[in-house]
Amino acid sequence: MPDFTDTLRPAQPSGPDSLAKERAGSTLAIDHLSAHLLGTDGLLARQSKVLPIILSEPLFSKTTQQNLSRPERYKLGLARGKLLRRLADKHAWTPEEHETAEYLVDDVSPYMLHMGMFVTTIREQASDAQRAYWLPLIEEWKIIGAYAQTELGHGSNVRGLELQARYDVGTREFVLHSPTLTASKWWNGTLGRTANHAIVVAQLMLPDPNAQGKYVSHGPHPFIVQVRDMKTHLPFKGIVIGDIGPKYGYASMDNAYMLFNNFRIPHSALLSRYSSVDRETGAYAKPKESAVVYGTLTFMRSKIIQHARLVLARAVTVAVRYTAVRRQFVDRDGPSNGPELPVLDYPTVQIRILPLLATAFALHYTALAMHTIYNSTRKEIEAGNFNSLAYMHSMSSGLKSLCTTLAADGIETCRRALGGHGFGGGSGLIQLNNDYLSKPTVEGDNWMITQQTAAYLVKKMARAVAGGTADASATDEIDVQFGTYLPLIRGARQCEYDILARDKDLVKSFQHRATSLAYNVYLARIVNKKPWTSLMIDFHKLSKAQSQSILVTKFHDALSSNKDLPPTTRNILWDVFRLFASYTLEAERYEFFTCGAASRKQLEALPARVLELMARIRPHAVPLVDAWKIPDYLLDSALGRYDGRVYEDLFNRAHRLNPLNKVTVNPNYWEDEIVKGGEDIDAIRAKL
Amino acid sequence: MPDFTDTLRPAQPSGPDSLAKERAGSTLAIDHLSAHLLGTDGLLARQSKVLPIILSEPLFSKTTQQNLSRPERYKLGLARGKLLRRLADKHAWTPEEHETAEYLVDDVSPYMLHMGMFVTTIREQASDAQRAYWLPLIEEWKIIGAYAQTELGHGSNVRGLELQARYDVGTREFVLHSPTLTASKWWNGTLGRTANHAIVVAQLMLPDPNAQGKYVSHGPHPFIVQVRDMKTHLPFKGIVIGDIGPKYGYASMDNAYMLFNNFRIPHSALLSRYSSVDRETGAYAKPKESAVVYGTLTFMRSKIIQHARLVLARAVTVAVRYTAVRRQFVDRDGPSNGPELPVLDYPTVQIRILPLLATAFALHYTALAMHTIYNSTRKEIEAGNFNSLAYMHSMSSGLKSLCTTLAADGIETCRRALGGHGFGGGSGLIQLNNDYLSKPTVEGDNWMITQQTAAYLVKKMARAVAGGTADASATDEIDVQFGTYLPLIRGARQCEYDILARDKDLVKSFQHRATSLAYNVYLARIVNKKPWTSLMIDFHKLSKAQSQSILVTKFHDALSSNKDLPPTTRNILWDVFRLFASYTLEAERYEFFTCGAASRKQLEALPARVLELMARIRPHAVPLVDAWKIPDYLLDSALGRYDGRVYEDLFNRAHRLNPLNKVTVNPNYWEDEIVKGGEDIDAIRAKL
Repeated sequence: MPDFTDTLRPAQPSGPDSLAKERAGSTLAIDHLSAHLLGTDGLLARQSKVLPIILSEPLFSKTTQQNLSRPERYKLGLARGKLLRRLADKHAWTPEEHETAEYLVDDVSPYMLHMGMFVTTIREQASDAQRAYWLPLIEEWKIIGAYAQTELGHGSNVRGLELQARYDVGTREFVLHSPTLTASKWWNGTLGRTANHAIVVAQLMLPDPNAQGKYVSHGPHPFIVQVRDMKTHLPFKGIVIGDIGPKYGYASMDNAYMLFNNFRIPHSALLSRYSSVDRETGAYAKPKESAVVYGTLTFMRSKIIQHARLVLARAVTVAVRYTAVRRQFVDRDGPSNGPELPVLDYPTVQIRILPLLATAFALHYTALAMHTIYNSTRKEIEAGNFNSLAYMHSMSSGLKSLCTTLAADGIETCRRALGGHGFGGGSGLIQLNNDYLSKPTVEGDNWMITQQTAAYLVKKMARAVAGGTADASATDEIDVQFGTYLPLIRGARQCEYDILARDKDLVKSFQHRATSLAYNVYLARIVNKKPWTSLMIDFHKLSKAQSQSILVTKFHDALSSNKDLPPTTRNILWDVFRLFASYTLEAERYEFFTCGAASRKQLEALPARVLELMARIRPHAVPLVDAWKIPDYLLDSALGRYDGRVYEDLFNRAHRLNPLNKVTVNPNYWEDEIVKGGEDIDAIRAKL
Repeated sequence: MPDFTDTLRPAQPSGPDSLAKERAGSTLAIDHLSAHLLGTDGLLARQSKVLPIILSEPLFSKTTQQNLSRPERYKLGLARGKLLRRLADKHAWTPEEHETAEYLVDDVSPYMLHMGMFVTTIREQASDAQRAYWLPLIEEWKIIGAYAQTELGHGSNVRGLELQARYDVGTREFVLHSPTLTASKWWNGTLGRTANHAIVVAQLMLPDPNAQGKYVSHGPHPFIVQVRDMKTHLPFKGIVIGDIGPKYGYASMDNAYMLFNNFRIPHSALLSRYSSVDRETGAYAKPKESAVVYGTLTFMRSKIIQHARLVLARAVTVAVRYTAVRRQFVDRDGPSNGPELPVLDYPTVQIRILPLLATAFALHYTALAMHTIYNSTRKEIEAGNFNSLAYMHSMSSGLKSLCTTLAADGIETCRRALGGHGFGGGSGLIQLNNDYLSKPTVEGDNWMITQQTAAYLVKKMARAVAGGTADASATDEIDVQFGTYLPLIRGARQCEYDILARDKDLVKSFQHRATSLAYNVYLARIVNKKPWTSLMIDFHKLSKAQSQSILVTKFHDALSSNKDLPPTTRNILWDVFRLFASYTLEAERYEFFTCGAASRKQLEALPARVLELMARIRPHAVPLVDAWKIPDYLLDSALGRYDGRVYEDLFNRAHRLNPLNKVTVNPNYWEDEIVKGGEDIDAIRAKL
């Protein structure tokens, strides 16, 4: 309905003018930088191919979905998942293109576990015969599967899982049974409403050869189980299954609970590539080599870091663009009738956003490095060499912890830097934040898994103290690092790193400090035999320090060896590197100071250095986020739009798209009626 | 429907057994501590009176509300608001009891601004005649009002508001007009759908006495405006108004946008207690004394800090109880078949939760102190003495910033410490978090307002450096603090505070460090004339340091002078104080070290001290949160239930209360049908 607001425009200067000025004022080669960041892995090409197809389908329109109820969000997710699969068929998308489409739609698919952990587990853990039977059904989505490991009472500690799979030699069946309520499967995505099959992880209970009628547990094993009828889609008798209810995010995903009451499955249900049970006797055959599983975990974690960099780039894109448009207050030292400044000019806004912009780049280069290491390690493993596996696994633990924490906290820091509109639906950060906050917990809790990193570092340190490794083939980057810095630390020599002037010295300072922490933890645990539990906080600090050191090192190495960027652009990236390293160092300066990795004099100068770097990066902030090429469709953000039409978009969402504005209410408290001429209180009561 | 899960119980030890053991193992006098914390202000008595009435009304049941759509949440909120008012009438609740009821229902009321800012503004800014006309209508809810100040383009900078109120001398009317889109009112609670009246803040434009036909702005002024028809509840012609759409939290609140197109209101609409416009000539009469407004702001902020303490206590209650019930992993140094430990026994869990438990107490004592200062200052102001106002205002700015940041971050820290279930709806923290994250921005952005605190401290420091104030009556706590520590700092004397052994020395160390930062900022701004903008980050650090010092000081003073607590309980609180101070100090240790407020030797020992204090507090953690007496109804948390029946509650919410489980779907992607025998894709499409 037309009204007088149709002709109103925002106050000057407009958002488009502000962003045009930002873009004109920088020498950064945006397209070069985009190609450098995202060209090699093909994301840009996939985005270009997939995005127009998605934009042409109204079902993928996002802007009003925040108004829907939880059950509606799930149904929408299911409809979208179906449509994406049809589009994938129609346009012959590769699996990567299908994945890019999911990424752009950004509403976790109820089919996600089917496409991920379910098929992956079959590929990796099923015998050849099992693969031949199941994979065609899975790939054609004739069956839909999920992955059910976590239970109501146990997540991190997989060995503590309670669900039992007892082998009945008489019938040659496994009997799945949940002895307690806490044995209920819990959190298992895709299973709550969508799947008809699942990988079910249960304690394998086999007849005890030494005691007739008794059973021995052989630990958790995976079984493939049909859980719902293919026609009615109802669970079988003996299985109770459902969706666990609303969560912080992931409204479109049906996370499940599931319990079994002496439910029988055939002998063939046990995935038997690595371990197997004799059909006749129930005797157990041990896995030949199970370390490969760690390879998968590492791969998942390297994907998490790759994802973290895009998540953070997205939040920073919104924050940088909006704070370049939004003006508030005049310069207090200038004339009182001067122009209001873009808030990104204030150091108190810069200090929250620009280090995070730098962090997105840091995450990028480490994700690349992880990917390279993963590929080479994978090849080694296939050739039977497991030397690098422990290194890769321990590094990926610490990095998963640090990188997801940085991204999760970073989204919220960006949101708060947006002022009041950051709390509104037009920020585009609400669902991102709500969904992403699962990441510090999944695939290994961010505090718990740092023990794995620390344990590895302590082991390596013990070897370094004892005089290094004899086996040169097992030498990794940690051995090199410890070999370089341990003599300095044990000699208590004051190191004259010039962290203000020499980029390489920033790297040295980080490596020095991580090595020093590793040495201290080694002394506490190995030499002084302190209890493991009492050192957990130190383990966490050590893992963080080492992971920060990796981020700084990989960033530095990537820029040092770079050949493809124009010099001006590379120089700007060097400032971005310096900001990341300097800001991170300043936050931990006491540790750097006490271990001799930075002098007090240099630390005193560091805040001014950070200010100076931010001032140098400020003119390139908008082009630096533009280079990540996050499409407006993915951002779904009035504040972060490429064209800067912030206020028009916010107003449009409110005035033209908000369904609540179709409701005229009765505010009189002495009357039951809520909607004028419509609903009374009973319609609401029925929903509770 | 009964099924085999009905007879299942959680694995042993049960939640109730675990919590019973925790409660039996502590000597803390829970009820004494409750009375000490919440007895004086009457919260416990109000809770006891109001809670049973609320529990008897099904409309206030919370557990399934997370499933509702945004429009449903608003309607539910409206129905609840009506019912609460009727219950208030029926049971003759005081305003405080009505407020307690709102607090327990914990779903922001669409009537909130009517009961708050609307009536407050009339009381404070309306003339006697205006009061006599409006207050009876407001108190009987015959009209419903809102408060419309913030605009689409301006929040923090009130002077930048664009809406105009031009006085037409000919008709004796003000003409409200929005010249741009950014002049739209925005965020104004209660106004989007509910209110029929509003306080509208607009630039007062009066005829320029020196130039015929021209107008001069006299800055923002408040007007009372009827915006909707009392019968149809539709906005008048010339007004466009609506709800701005979904937000991060506050689903039940209708935040508004509103624009005016040359809309005329009578001369009597200008609230004219302080300033007025001559009806005939349009001449302006300046306000007599407007500083009182700052008193209100300070009062609002002291309420925010009181609220922050309860918010944090609530999050910590959930975290402590659940981590005392949840068991995961055995002690790595013990036998591998040992019992799994409650996760609260791990220092990596303690370090996230116990300092926040201590913070809730710290916030409590500072809120009390603020309340006392507010009351005495209020009395002084009424006697015409404005000496304390600037002090109170500046302290309340810094404390609002620090305390809401601590509470907002604290909720999320607690949530992440809950493992996977922290991401689930049963945590009880999701809505708390989503709603509370508005607090770091409202009533003054947490970064921006620290400038006010710093400006005051710099002014005081300049006076201290110049030799103190001549006017003893204007001396406040800051003068005393600067007078004590400035000589030490200027003399660069090494202070031998024993922060490990003497509680008072912790206080000294914090005051020393805040004074030192104030002195450095004074040197930079006043002596070296550095630009204001370049010092903003230092202002923020200074404000934080001073506010931390206040929290530590008030906590210490409260325990030192305490007479009502049993000695054992008071001793436990002393440990809580020590943990708060030590943990806070450790996080900022570089600042303490470089200004001489803590020695390197003592700082080295601090992590072990924190560990030791946590171990000492650990046995009392459950009773310490019990003492806050947060009712299960308010918690609405399976994880944080008083009785520890965590897993039964989680399962009940999923299996018996989740509406999504009534839906059986069709997962075949080649078919449109979503719900078996029901909805197809079109039902979903229509909602987008």
